[in-house]
Amino acid sequence: MTTRRQFIRTTAAGAAVLAAGTAAFPNLIIPKKKDRLGVALIGLGYYSRDLLAPALQVTKKCYLAGIVTGSPEKAKQWQEKHGIPDKNVYNYDNFDSIADNPDIDVVYVVLPNNLHKEFTLRGARAGKHVWCEKPMAMNAAECRDMIKGCRDNKVKLSIGYRMQHEPNTQEIIRYGKEKTLGAVRLVTASAGFRDSRTDHWRLKKAMGGGAMFDMGVYSLNAARYATSEEPIGVTAQQFTTRPELYSEVDETMLFQLEFPGGALANCSTSFGMGMNTLHTVCEKGWYRLDPFQAYRGVQGVTSTGKALNIDTPNEQAKQMDEDAAAIMDNTDVLVPGEEGLRDMIVVDAIYQSVKEGRRVPVDSGR
Amino acid sequence: MTTRRQFIRTTAAGAAVLAAGTAAFPNLIIPKKKDRLGVALIGLGYYSRDLLAPALQVTKKCYLAGIVTGSPEKAKQWQEKHGIPDKNVYNYDNFDSIADNPDIDVVYVVLPNNLHKEFTLRGARAGKHVWCEKPMAMNAAECRDMIKGCRDNKVKLSIGYRMQHEPNTQEIIRYGKEKTLGAVRLVTASAGFRDSRTDHWRLKKAMGGGAMFDMGVYSLNAARYATSEEPIGVTAQQFTTRPELYSEVDETMLFQLEFPGGALANCSTSFGMGMNTLHTVCEKGWYRLDPFQAYRGVQGVTSTGKALNIDTPNEQAKQMDEDAAAIMDNTDVLVPGEEGLRDMIVVDAIYQSVKEGRRVPVDSGR
Repeated sequence: MTTRRQFIRTTAAGAAVLAAGTAAFPNLIIPKKKDRLGVALIGLGYYSRDLLAPALQVTKKCYLAGIVTGSPEKAKQWQEKHGIPDKNVYNYDNFDSIADNPDIDVVYVVLPNNLHKEFTLRGARAGKHVWCEKPMAMNAAECRDMIKGCRDNKVKLSIGYRMQHEPNTQEIIRYGKEKTLGAVRLVTASAGFRDSRTDHWRLKKAMGGGAMFDMGVYSLNAARYATSEEPIGVTAQQFTTRPELYSEVDETMLFQLEFPGGALANCSTSFGMGMNTLHTVCEKGWYRLDPFQAYRGVQGVTSTGKALNIDTPNEQAKQMDEDAAAIMDNTDVLVPGEEGLRDMIVVDAIYQSVKEGRRVPVDSGR
Repeated sequence: MTTRRQFIRTTAAGAAVLAAGTAAFPNLIIPKKKDRLGVALIGLGYYSRDLLAPALQVTKKCYLAGIVTGSPEKAKQWQEKHGIPDKNVYNYDNFDSIADNPDIDVVYVVLPNNLHKEFTLRGARAGKHVWCEKPMAMNAAECRDMIKGCRDNKVKLSIGYRMQHEPNTQEIIRYGKEKTLGAVRLVTASAGFRDSRTDHWRLKKAMGGGAMFDMGVYSLNAARYATSEEPIGVTAQQFTTRPELYSEVDETMLFQLEFPGGALANCSTSFGMGMNTLHTVCEKGWYRLDPFQAYRGVQGVTSTGKALNIDTPNEQAKQMDEDAAAIMDNTDVLVPGEEGLRDMIVVDAIYQSVKEGRRVPVDSGR
């Protein structure tokens, strides 16, 4: 039975597949020289279900080919909804046999953060390209292992920092690089939302919970891409107004970054409040993205009155299509593992600064 | 000879004075029960010349009655421009004899910061009410002396935090107090400008220079008035990109405040870059003033779409008229010395935090 969504995706798949008369399960027949890459999502939580799966219905260079889940019930639901054949469904035990499945070109790690390293390495060893959600891992050491594992297995590794694929964001990245309004002096980046869930893995330290890992990397990544520099020092402060919930992990974090060219960043992140602003002060003016990390509708304005309002109907689709194109064309991916590593080097320093109550120097290792 | 400006002020002075036929020097004749207070400006720099003197031409409850300056040349210029009689002109040596001058009701201290305490105390001892520019003094101890000196001499002391008199600012102060969008969670306040002067007293530590004293107190005061709370802890970081200029004082300061109700403030100030934003995140929304401390045109918006755009043609005039009314009616001034003190307690902690590289607890002493 073909669902409406399948039909929509199928029609987007191009004439070749349609001509083959495989409307019900178009994924089963893939040309030798693939015009679309098969993606298997590892982990079927909210982000996979509500963002990535819908995005994979509108991508042009990749499609949802398989799933990896520990839940037989979820597997059944996804198979029915997305027309995924049994042979493309894996659990966490038999996942490594994905090496033998030519339908799967890419595995996308959408698991809790403590599992990013393991499944990235297992995917790489299976010969699959890896896309991994942010934050890349639990710390910089894990990131280095992941980069090495992908390099050793000759697969590409992309980190899911979709904002770097977003056109308005790319515009302000360009301003920073080209000093359009003079050199960047201060980036103020705030990313957070009010999370009232009381039993989520993001409350667990061992699983990589906390606001800094989840939302703080938006602020951090923004400070880095707005300056196009790597921080050399960091101070950070951790707070909570709900100690009963946030006993293991950070609810709210303020952190300050120093860049070698003299720019500074004043960042905040929280699971206690909604915030979504990236404000960049340069020598001769400023620009603001507000919101700067919404799933749809990043927009902003510059001090010269220019509106930053290019529309991107589906950010995740753009990200995945661009990452797929890099694999097909064997070019560099836009956001490689090294980019995730550089954030995690700073995140490590942020936690160290909180623990020690002092400034911590940062060496990006570049 | 009556200048155009004098004529404008004179006509604003009301029929009583005009009827007395003193158009040229209306200040010489003051009714027993004054309908306007005579103000003497102490220090005739930029702020007195370009902001306060023009404002005193449109005030309704006070007027420019005298000047105190170390420069005979400036005295002559001001006398000619503003029609100030010789008997209302003082220098720093003979200033104390102002006690015998009934024309002068208020002295307004607009001197470098290291002189605020001395001239506040001398003004109070002369029996004059005192208005003092921000920052109130060099440290909290000086502020306490000033408060005591004014109390002992039964004169009122107002600090020149004009934003607290500004209607859009008052609107967001009310939001914080009434929790209009829920409790305040994070205040982000940035105040600065690019100062390229190489020989100004604000580069001198002994005179109370530095960005924190001059512009940082805008951010600090905003964090306090947006929350209507007193901070209990502070961390701060000092930076410069022009060490050749900023060898004695701070060019750029980031500082973070913790409030007892769980609100936080992420503040910045600089003489290296222009910034002028006050963004307040609450439980259920946000509001922004941008600019929040311009001489004209504070404006903003709330997350509910309300524009904050009440126009105040002259902020300094509003401040001085309200302070004059409090003196005439013998009511509390809006921004008393205690308010300047509370800022300075935090400023002391900010410098201590920079020096010690750690969090410093703050006790507002309330």
